[in-house]
Amino acid sequence: MGELARLPGIGRKTALRMALHLLKRDVVEAENLGNAIIRLRNEVTYCARCRNISDEELCAICANPRRDPALICVVEDIRDVMAIENTGQYNGLYHVLGGIISPMEGIGPQDLNISELISRASSGEACEVILALPGTIEGDTTGYYLYKRLVSCNIRITVLARGIPVGDELEHTDEVTLGRAMVNRVEFSGK
Amino acid sequence: MGELARLPGIGRKTALRMALHLLKRDVVEAENLGNAIIRLRNEVTYCARCRNISDEELCAICANPRRDPALICVVEDIRDVMAIENTGQYNGLYHVLGGIISPMEGIGPQDLNISELISRASSGEACEVILALPGTIEGDTTGYYLYKRLVSCNIRITVLARGIPVGDELEHTDEVTLGRAMVNRVEFSGK
Repeated sequence: MGELARLPGIGRKTALRMALHLLKRDVVEAENLGNAIIRLRNEVTYCARCRNISDEELCAICANPRRDPALICVVEDIRDVMAIENTGQYNGLYHVLGGIISPMEGIGPQDLNISELISRASSGEACEVILALPGTIEGDTTGYYLYKRLVSCNIRITVLARGIPVGDELEHTDEVTLGRAMVNRVEFSGK
Repeated sequence: MGELARLPGIGRKTALRMALHLLKRDVVEAENLGNAIIRLRNEVTYCARCRNISDEELCAICANPRRDPALICVVEDIRDVMAIENTGQYNGLYHVLGGIISPMEGIGPQDLNISELISRASSGEACEVILALPGTIEGDTTGYYLYKRLVSCNIRITVLARGIPVGDELEHTDEVTLGRAMVNRVEFSGK
């Protein structure tokens, strides 16, 4: 029970509830869960190409022949891969940086998977790098740093559109976003 | 007190607190407030050009010679004028529709200040109409309707940028917005 309570977001009471639940179920069920957790730690590794989680050398996305290898979407971490996959709007590959540049937390470019990105971008197979980084100062800093490094690769460099979220009222939008959406307004396209 | 309680967001208890507050203050103070409310209703009208609130024939924005009359920003209501003014990023004029097309609420194009917009857009003074409508289905419908009407005016028609709000993490962005931000990605500009 003490072990369960060390999981993130699990307090002593939830751990107790989990433990009691497991005690009530079949022995096999507890063994399955236990073994799955052991396998998780032993077998799940990172994709050799994009640093997504994987249980093979290449992750399921990199290994999928129907994904477009000409597109590389650069993200901060694996949760962003999942978020973009959930949209169903992207068919290219990813590159997981494993963090963003943050002087406050002592994370510099050397701590991130940047040299791998540069070599992928200059391999000739890719023709567009999409910087899908958070809209924070650290995200902007990282984007700018990557742009400086990538610009010599002779590749198209794009960023996610920024502006007012779909479904939002203007009066509920923060004024920085609204101001930028005004400055970066685009031709009407009916979309 | 009953009159106070009819204001939006004011219940009986708040009305009582307001009434007791007024009783404790000088007579002049209550008279000032009462007269201000009467003047508000009698004197504040709508700008003859843009339908913003105003106490003159033209509102303070339309009457300001430093505003750019070549730009017309179309908004749903006056709160949107205030929201955009607060950003400090816009120097043109406005056009307040007084609502948006909503079949559910029985609001059609004929209920909005659309014919005035068309005549302003075709006057020759304006060269761009910015559709700053909410990102909802009603907002999109209204935008599409206005586009159809405006396209013959030979004028540039733009919309506010849509995408991920400034400062937001990808994983906290709803998937429709994230998907559209991916589809509508733009060249890196360092901004």
